[in-house]
Amino acid sequence: MNLKNPYRNMIVINALMRGGIVPEEVRQELSNWMEVGYITCFDCLEGRSSLVGKPPIKKFLEEVAGFFGGDAAEHTFGCRGAQFAVMRAIREWVSENDDYTETVILDPNCHYSSNIAAEMNGLKVVEPPHSGYPEYLYDPDDFSKKIKEVKEREGKLPALLVVTHADPYFGNIAPTDAIGKICEENEIPYLVNAAYTGGVIPIDIRRMKADFLTLSAHKSMASLGPLGYVVTTHKWTKKIFATSEARPSWSGRRFGKKIPNIFGCSIGGLPLISSMLSFDQVKKRVKGWDEELTKINRFVKDMEDLGDIMLLGQQPHRHHLLHFETPKFWEVSKSHRKKGFFLASGMIERGIVGLHKGMSKHIKMSVYGLKDEEIAKVKDAFCDLAKER
Amino acid sequence: MNLKNPYRNMIVINALMRGGIVPEEVRQELSNWMEVGYITCFDCLEGRSSLVGKPPIKKFLEEVAGFFGGDAAEHTFGCRGAQFAVMRAIREWVSENDDYTETVILDPNCHYSSNIAAEMNGLKVVEPPHSGYPEYLYDPDDFSKKIKEVKEREGKLPALLVVTHADPYFGNIAPTDAIGKICEENEIPYLVNAAYTGGVIPIDIRRMKADFLTLSAHKSMASLGPLGYVVTTHKWTKKIFATSEARPSWSGRRFGKKIPNIFGCSIGGLPLISSMLSFDQVKKRVKGWDEELTKINRFVKDMEDLGDIMLLGQQPHRHHLLHFETPKFWEVSKSHRKKGFFLASGMIERGIVGLHKGMSKHIKMSVYGLKDEEIAKVKDAFCDLAKER
Repeated sequence: MNLKNPYRNMIVINALMRGGIVPEEVRQELSNWMEVGYITCFDCLEGRSSLVGKPPIKKFLEEVAGFFGGDAAEHTFGCRGAQFAVMRAIREWVSENDDYTETVILDPNCHYSSNIAAEMNGLKVVEPPHSGYPEYLYDPDDFSKKIKEVKEREGKLPALLVVTHADPYFGNIAPTDAIGKICEENEIPYLVNAAYTGGVIPIDIRRMKADFLTLSAHKSMASLGPLGYVVTTHKWTKKIFATSEARPSWSGRRFGKKIPNIFGCSIGGLPLISSMLSFDQVKKRVKGWDEELTKINRFVKDMEDLGDIMLLGQQPHRHHLLHFETPKFWEVSKSHRKKGFFLASGMIERGIVGLHKGMSKHIKMSVYGLKDEEIAKVKDAFCDLAKER
Repeated sequence: MNLKNPYRNMIVINALMRGGIVPEEVRQELSNWMEVGYITCFDCLEGRSSLVGKPPIKKFLEEVAGFFGGDAAEHTFGCRGAQFAVMRAIREWVSENDDYTETVILDPNCHYSSNIAAEMNGLKVVEPPHSGYPEYLYDPDDFSKKIKEVKEREGKLPALLVVTHADPYFGNIAPTDAIGKICEENEIPYLVNAAYTGGVIPIDIRRMKADFLTLSAHKSMASLGPLGYVVTTHKWTKKIFATSEARPSWSGRRFGKKIPNIFGCSIGGLPLISSMLSFDQVKKRVKGWDEELTKINRFVKDMEDLGDIMLLGQQPHRHHLLHFETPKFWEVSKSHRKKGFFLASGMIERGIVGLHKGMSKHIKMSVYGLKDEEIAKVKDAFCDLAKER
């Protein structure tokens, strides 16, 4: 199979990808770790990657937990694996706890992986509303009402409340602290999905009063994928990271170090090495978030100044995922020989990749972490394309 | 974090790793695919990696399925993700099917991930026996008896029978064809876990009469991890790859292309690119398996000729995982200043890595895919270390 990466060395503006750009020096070092698929397993003595001391995975996971204000962390198969682990633990917990029902509250702009994790675990999903076009905001009161509604209808409390810290549709920052307070008052376990923020924006789960934080290393922690993390507090560590109780009938084997909620052991491999190598830079870049945000909002203004372009969601924006409504480009597409494809392909011709092909009415993108001259290049490209016919 | 790979360029003899060695030219090409964690997602139009045409993931998965004699395949988070997908599908199927019970038959030397997949899905595990020391063989009749036993005790058939094609303890090749015949006669769904063989030994699930084949790319398909595949037949495709039925209450969103059994979408990333790049070589190397086996059994003889060393499991051996009983090295360790650690560390001093540190009474290893001069070097190292005091 003669595969070539057609987008090598281009400026990437896909909002899913910008937080996952692997730093050049990390990529260089990774070339020394690619001989073996199971690269994290040479010195595994206890049969679980998260207990390995060489490379220092165990210590690294403690650092990850601490960085986000938590007490313990495990690496997972992406953030979806982290959310699955939480919801599987919650389902077990509900089955032992009469005050709670198998219904979970999910924010209405959550990533689909939250819905799938609930579906995989047979949990029923209810949603509070958002404020609709053009801001799509959450009101903490709506989460309160939803809790009461579940309690009244089912006679029990919802098992879990999930809020996506920055949502994947508009990049709105949710009122996680206020919702956390509501969860605390109502004694409802609280998961904040920080797939789009953890590793980009400062996060402390103590301030959020969250019981669980789920993270995507390839989305927001400058890492290869698939890799995620689940961070939790002392209260939940033993439940979510409970070890196997399997004892097959004849052999009587035990798998006492394996954690079923994360498939026994989540392997790690090269993605985990990449995340360990990137972590110092991730810790550092989070401190510069305010300056990034200034650059991002300046870019938003420049885009809107092109005319007939409007950012959806919070203004000023508080995340790097930008969802623009672009009647300007939609107009161009109507008479363009490439139709809606003119925009993404025009960008690629200019060395910029990441727009969804065929879309011109709306675009989702990000300039997070780009240098000023790269942002200027992106802006100029949009400016050019707005003039195409 | 200043990580260095201490085993770079050493000869790897870990049996888990030899089938996953990433070819030099693949590693070279991979350096062009490492800028972005989500490297497989640039041209994702339908929201699931397995439907992507560029790179040709969809076509590649068809090739993978065909190569193993199946009709459809999905990539997964390792072989454990593949086994989870099968067992989750089976649990659903049982709940709609009165003739079957939530008990599964697992071979007693299966990998722990089979047990964990059953535990994760609430399936009860029963095991037929093996023949015990020193061969640990399976008798197909014991699987027949176990089916009858479940049927008599529970009044229903077991939901699934799982056999590990080559087991992780002794590298014995299981009588998969004979067991497949039994499953067919008894109408029991049949999963062959080929984590240690698929990509190394020729496999055709039609001959095995298997409904499901699970594979580990980083164990046996010359790939980075974590990556696995689940292959199935037309009969089961719609069940195991059923798409999401979630419809959250307020937004009414649908996730119609997502497959819950594989977390909606299994991402892929760099491991998937590596597996695609390696696949031509994998297909080719499988054809040379007989010659590999001759080399492997010659190595076994040479090791046994050192004296007080005996291979456990099948003789002649039919897989590359070699489990030796080594009273010879155990004797040395008793008086050696490094105790049991002398063996693994003595090998590392000689540029050979992969023995479990501290073990000298038994060793597990592999010389699969090594050049003759490398095998000679391994042999000489063991010969040297047998003489240490």
